[in-house]
Amino acid sequence: MPELRYDPFRGKWTIIAADRGARPSSFARRQEHDGDNGVCPLCPGNEAMTPPEIYAVRGDGSLPDTPGWSIRVVPNKYPALSLSAAPEVVEPGLYAAAGAFGSHEVIVETTSHELQMADLSPEQISEVLRVYRRRVNDLFGDQRIDTVLLFKNYGAAAGASLIHAHTQLAALPFTPVDIRSETEAFARYGEVAGGCLMCRVLEEEASRGRRIVDAGRGFVVFAPFASRFPYETWIVPEEHAPCFTTITDDGCLQLAHVLRSLLYRLREEVQDPPYNLVLHTAPAGVEGFHWHLELGPRLTTLGGFELGTGVMINTVAPETAAAILRNS
Amino acid sequence: MPELRYDPFRGKWTIIAADRGARPSSFARRQEHDGDNGVCPLCPGNEAMTPPEIYAVRGDGSLPDTPGWSIRVVPNKYPALSLSAAPEVVEPGLYAAAGAFGSHEVIVETTSHELQMADLSPEQISEVLRVYRRRVNDLFGDQRIDTVLLFKNYGAAAGASLIHAHTQLAALPFTPVDIRSETEAFARYGEVAGGCLMCRVLEEEASRGRRIVDAGRGFVVFAPFASRFPYETWIVPEEHAPCFTTITDDGCLQLAHVLRSLLYRLREEVQDPPYNLVLHTAPAGVEGFHWHLELGPRLTTLGGFELGTGVMINTVAPETAAAILRNS
Repeated sequence: MPELRYDPFRGKWTIIAADRGARPSSFARRQEHDGDNGVCPLCPGNEAMTPPEIYAVRGDGSLPDTPGWSIRVVPNKYPALSLSAAPEVVEPGLYAAAGAFGSHEVIVETTSHELQMADLSPEQISEVLRVYRRRVNDLFGDQRIDTVLLFKNYGAAAGASLIHAHTQLAALPFTPVDIRSETEAFARYGEVAGGCLMCRVLEEEASRGRRIVDAGRGFVVFAPFASRFPYETWIVPEEHAPCFTTITDDGCLQLAHVLRSLLYRLREEVQDPPYNLVLHTAPAGVEGFHWHLELGPRLTTLGGFELGTGVMINTVAPETAAAILRNS
Repeated sequence: MPELRYDPFRGKWTIIAADRGARPSSFARRQEHDGDNGVCPLCPGNEAMTPPEIYAVRGDGSLPDTPGWSIRVVPNKYPALSLSAAPEVVEPGLYAAAGAFGSHEVIVETTSHELQMADLSPEQISEVLRVYRRRVNDLFGDQRIDTVLLFKNYGAAAGASLIHAHTQLAALPFTPVDIRSETEAFARYGEVAGGCLMCRVLEEEASRGRRIVDAGRGFVVFAPFASRFPYETWIVPEEHAPCFTTITDDGCLQLAHVLRSLLYRLREEVQDPPYNLVLHTAPAGVEGFHWHLELGPRLTTLGGFELGTGVMINTVAPETAAAILRNS
């Protein structure tokens, strides 16, 4: 059972998920791979290799945990969070610990072992986004859940262990420190300046133009001013909305076009980099927020400076990144 | 010139050091290597390949920037911080930016291209530690410097780009957010409970024993309760002291023995993992602190969850890590 432990020096929680790893010798194998012994647990026909499915988009008549699906959601086989842990929220303190309550799911985006998200049609990506919406919505329906993090690790350097296209989802009973910083930033901006911090940044970016990669289809794609990663880009809905769950079916299709186009630009102009794609959506009960996607390519390695200070070093100015990405 | 930019969503600074990188095609080459075109800029005879030296331990009569040194300190050729930037401290805000004032140095630990720190004798490591002390002391002598971060990236997966054994040093005019969290944790503990947070943890660890790797030579080596990385270990002086700079020559020799022994244990028991070694020492004017070294092996890759939440997932319980490291 994974355990949450509080670090009193950093004021942060760590999840000790010891059964995910093993003896030192097992680390060498932890690369992105096709599956255990070359058998992919996310491919059709191998449904028994994952825990029983949570949800699937299925053709009529096909049974759960059998082929016939086009998108499939399953619990992570090596979960960092467990719904069978006690959902208590423990006060920070010296040696504070608790079972890591929550849900850790895998969304299999396609039946194909080879296709990546950038290869899917806008309609297929839109369907994946609707599954995202459904799962996020469902988890927020649980009163014990505070924060839902939806993230995609693409490529080994971004933390992916399986090649088969998938997204992960983590639902937590508390607001993690970095997400709290963000909600507090929105709240503070609202108090001091009035309005929404992100809406203000969208205005500013539109007027400056230099960091815009794509716009005009309901979403603004731009390289943020203080980008932490080379070619970091955010996809932000023009219309203010705190929660991703309020996106419409039309919105999903628009977003699919915009996201696919960004993934294409990265593939063409930045040689298909590994990346993390993270959905930022309001924690339960938080109203001052503007949902968006953050895509961070992982072209450099975080070293002692970044991990020791929290200050990131980015070797490509966002203005340069946007110009290169606009090219395509 | 590197630039500091404020991220209003995270409340953190990013350093845009654009001349360190280049066009997208250059990223593929950014592995750990012997040097440009196979010529190592840190080897004796190649002194002209680095900026002029800041300090060196030299045999009598040898000239700066020529062979004859045993340890050599030079400015980083691709600095993330520059002493020629204006030393102004800029208030956080929307689109706040400033030249990234500070110093970014490289400490070459040995003339040998092959030997790593674990291969050096305790006396040689002790000499390296005395050079650390000298440089940290010197930089704190500059009234404009607030924080000095000394860090060693070992192995490509830990961010090293050159194989030749070296340590880096970054001096900053402000306290980075993660270091401020730590100083605030010490201050809060002092107010609420009295005394030093680290001294308290050392007591607790000594009494529990399970996470201790090494003790009894003036330093306690242990796997912290909320370890962020598999086999993370801290080296903490038993005697309370806020600043590393107050370490004696004898202390340096003791620490050299302890550090070398830990590096050996990692090499033997954890297959010589890549790691970051980071010195935590009090920022200027901060008294409530207890200096120490944190060693974080980099056996897993940070993914979207860790980067999106600040919550780390560690696949090896610190109690297991300590037991394995004690074995040797």
